Amino acid sequence: MPYNAPVEQIEFILNEVVGLPEVSRTDIFAEATAETVKSILTEAGRIATEIIAPVNRAGDLTPARLENGALRSSPGFAEAFTALAEGGWIGLAANPEYGGMGLPQALNMAVNEMVASACLALQLNPMLTQGQIEALEHHGSEELKALYLPKLNSGEWSGTMNLTEPGAGSDVGALTTKAECVEDGTYRVTGQKIFITWGDSDVTSNVCHLVLARLPDGGAGTKGISLFMVPKFIPDADGNPGVANDLRVVSLEHKLGIHGSPTCVMSFEGAKGWLVGQEHKGMAAMFTMMNCARLGVGVQGVAQGEAALQQATLYATERNQFGPIIRHPDVRRMLATSRAEVFAARSICFACAVAIDMARATGEAEWAARAAFLTPIAKAYGTDVGTRVADTAVQVHGGMGYIEETGIAQYLRDVRITSIYEGTNGIQAMDLVGRKFADGGAAATALLDEILDSAKAAQAAFPELANHVWQAAETLRETTLELLDSALPDRFAGAVPYLSAFARVLGAHYHLISAMQGGSVTLARVHITRVLPQFAGDLAAAKAGVADLEALDDDLFLGQMTV
Amino acid sequence: MPYNAPVEQIEFILNEVVGLPEVSRTDIFAEATAETVKSILTEAGRIATEIIAPVNRAGDLTPARLENGALRSSPGFAEAFTALAEGGWIGLAANPEYGGMGLPQALNMAVNEMVASACLALQLNPMLTQGQIEALEHHGSEELKALYLPKLNSGEWSGTMNLTEPGAGSDVGALTTKAECVEDGTYRVTGQKIFITWGDSDVTSNVCHLVLARLPDGGAGTKGISLFMVPKFIPDADGNPGVANDLRVVSLEHKLGIHGSPTCVMSFEGAKGWLVGQEHKGMAAMFTMMNCARLGVGVQGVAQGEAALQQATLYATERNQFGPIIRHPDVRRMLATSRAEVFAARSICFACAVAIDMARATGEAEWAARAAFLTPIAKAYGTDVGTRVADTAVQVHGGMGYIEETGIAQYLRDVRITSIYEGTNGIQAMDLVGRKFADGGAAATALLDEILDSAKAAQAAFPELANHVWQAAETLRETTLELLDSALPDRFAGAVPYLSAFARVLGAHYHLISAMQGGSVTLARVHITRVLPQFAGDLAAAKAGVADLEALDDDLFLGQMTV
Repeated sequence: MPYNAPVEQIEFILNEVVGLPEVSRTDIFAEATAETVKSILTEAGRIATEIIAPVNRAGDLTPARLENGALRSSPGFAEAFTALAEGGWIGLAANPEYGGMGLPQALNMAVNEMVASACLALQLNPMLTQGQIEALEHHGSEELKALYLPKLNSGEWSGTMNLTEPGAGSDVGALTTKAECVEDGTYRVTGQKIFITWGDSDVTSNVCHLVLARLPDGGAGTKGISLFMVPKFIPDADGNPGVANDLRVVSLEHKLGIHGSPTCVMSFEGAKGWLVGQEHKGMAAMFTMMNCARLGVGVQGVAQGEAALQQATLYATERNQFGPIIRHPDVRRMLATSRAEVFAARSICFACAVAIDMARATGEAEWAARAAFLTPIAKAYGTDVGTRVADTAVQVHGGMGYIEETGIAQYLRDVRITSIYEGTNGIQAMDLVGRKFADGGAAATALLDEILDSAKAAQAAFPELANHVWQAAETLRETTLELLDSALPDRFAGAVPYLSAFARVLGAHYHLISAMQGGSVTLARVHITRVLPQFAGDLAAAKAGVADLEALDDDLFLGQMTV
Repeated sequence: MPYNAPVEQIEFILNEVVGLPEVSRTDIFAEATAETVKSILTEAGRIATEIIAPVNRAGDLTPARLENGALRSSPGFAEAFTALAEGGWIGLAANPEYGGMGLPQALNMAVNEMVASACLALQLNPMLTQGQIEALEHHGSEELKALYLPKLNSGEWSGTMNLTEPGAGSDVGALTTKAECVEDGTYRVTGQKIFITWGDSDVTSNVCHLVLARLPDGGAGTKGISLFMVPKFIPDADGNPGVANDLRVVSLEHKLGIHGSPTCVMSFEGAKGWLVGQEHKGMAAMFTMMNCARLGVGVQGVAQGEAALQQATLYATERNQFGPIIRHPDVRRMLATSRAEVFAARSICFACAVAIDMARATGEAEWAARAAFLTPIAKAYGTDVGTRVADTAVQVHGGMGYIEETGIAQYLRDVRITSIYEGTNGIQAMDLVGRKFADGGAAATALLDEILDSAKAAQAAFPELANHVWQAAETLRETTLELLDSALPDRFAGAVPYLSAFARVLGAHYHLISAMQGGSVTLARVHITRVLPQFAGDLAAAKAGVADLEALDDDLFLGQMTV
């Protein structure tokens, strides 16, 4: 794969578009100086390009497999993972007290993006480990933190999330895995989990499962769920992997993509576990992990879009049909709108990370609300863009795009999961117009005011572009107020197009800032004249309500009637 | 696969929306009475549902393969093909003089849709054979027609198109395959072709290749190309397959989807061929074949969308997460907009087929121009809808959609080729704003006038819906006039979004007719309030011109600069 980490574009967005320097001016992130940021991006980019990217294809062709119940990962994955671990990249944003580097999430997400561009299947392992680190930092006991965090930060051990069961996907509260307390204060966990990413690993010496389960006195639904640390090998007195726990990988899934990432059916058979956080409060801890992972998945979408776009660009440069096809207007349209959308989605993801960092550094509720509001947009739009750009990259390749050896179809197959896992994009959109509207629209309005102000400030330099953005933001503000007044089912019926419209306006906003800061004015115009205008159609759909959808007979969907 | 042919919806669209009865009132299609249409649809639907659909999964899991140079097709394909051949379905629209049934293309496309829903990989074989039949009917000598057509119509033999070479894809004129005339008036054809669908077959006793090649005195580019019939086995004196010709399948491609369809690298090594049409006029004959195939590919998109939507609907009915997920507003939104788009795309394809039939029956240039104008829209929009709906169907499945055993991912992988082959959708869009605007916009304007008139006629019954359609058509008319005045590169830069806008307006038009004719008013409203409104964003992009695209540096696409 010809991936070449776009260090300069990433650094530009962090510094000039989304405000990383403001993060660096806070006390806790004072070490994230411009020089540190540059050198970390450069070194991570080098590793992604030179060490991780070369194993991506092997992960697709030689999927992870089970051999007598033990996982054998794809060729080269162990070496690539070791390079990540030894560089200290896994604990980049983690608490230095336990071996982390304490750097901003914005920088961490930038590094994650480059690794996920290079090899999504492999990057899932450290990404989930990072989520576990965050959950333990917030909810783990001192003993758990002291024992697990240093090993997770160093990459000696890896971490997983065990939520889903056959009957409990989006409805996590329907889970049936049980836990019971035993005399020594530990627990026994019993049940089956599905879709467990990197549920086993031969690239780390232990696999630490965070498992949602219900205690005997746990009520029904999400409120009766607790969270447990259930390691593959029970740590001995020295904290090294000891006896095997009572759990196993039953099977691996055969998937459309990310073949190098083992997706496991896990069986916990009275496995020994330790409570994380309080009894029956497991969902709170899991949400900590999931929020981090949601932004991380948005970044994965951006990452795969970036890599696919690079490969399509190279192909278009080399392929001649009536001259190099990159000179053809329609091919340039595909590449340019893809680049504009990758830029927009990346900016949204990094802006979300900056809000997370600022919330942590300042303790201000406004920053936390901003982060919470941007998270579902970053996740859904980042992954939609990733899928759209990978699809376009296949199209740029013409017939060669459909041939697996070309490698471009792998991006389309790999990235497709990102719109589904960590909460489908429909769930994200419902979160946006549901929970994230529970403040009466305060977070949305604050963001829109910022966009309107920023457009006003750009009026002198770029009157036409600024007007488009201002108008769009104003229309979005009106629709937001309308939706805030609507019943929940009507909002849900319009949630996905509403999120799409918000993302388009946000993207245009960051493009405008970029233009003001010396970035490409032409690329901003490509976004504002070709990508932004769809927001109007999105808003029409966002306001269309649920009544028509409910009135349609299911048999019409099945093609078995006409009225 | 649970595909169940939507006979009632198809019949409704043919009879009430796109005007098949007008075709039946012409002399040459007098036999296509309402009763005949119904019984053919019913019987074809039964075969598709009961005989073809059950082999679809096996085609994916057990791809066609080469065994000592001979093709072995996927399990069950031979039996399924035989059912098609014996039903007389291949020659449905072909000349009765040579064993065809002489029925309208509109009916043929409806049958093709059901077969392509059931198994795209298999349906490619009869679809290409139909294209060859049409090319021979128009351009073949009497000898060729008498020898080949009865065998092609009956499905004893199958046909292929050999255009593409490694350096000659969209630019067909760059081909290097050579032909030379020998003393007996036949030709020797030498060269390599790629992407040859069903380039060999064990389900028919002969494979008839139509091959584009250049004669020694053929000039450069497309004008020096001739077309040859090159059979796998040279027919003996009785017209039966005789000695093997000097050609072979070099290898099969490993593709993203349609694994059951063998995509061959073909080598012609002085193979014996017969000229079809005149020397150096091969492109004209090939265009006859390609035009028919382009509409056929649009129908394939509709077909795969239909099948994927049916499976997603069934899954949504059975899957419980907070109750059956089909009751959730966002899931209903996905299913309803998909159904509205499948309805729209099917109507456009069938309307194109009706125009083809009317052109043939009446000889009127207006009908021919209508058919020519609708063909690229039918191809591009039909396949875009197919891909979009299959993608949505995966999303409805959540995590299960990513597991190959679920079967829904196969639709996404299979349908993806339809946006690429028979001219990429970008090529279709350039054809629309290029060649199809060469009449000064006459065909476009005639169609738009019809839409405007029809919207006026619907004003009394459905004022709001009719107004939306009228406004959209009027805006589209204005943009069409603007584009007609633009330079070609500017048109090309906006071609794809322009085609998309035109398709949305056309789809709304047919939905409005459907509502007037007793079809679902609610589905029409779903289209007009949620699908149509994107036309405005499309038109903004259509008018954005080429200058910005040309101004961007290629290195920006590669991520290696920011300005």
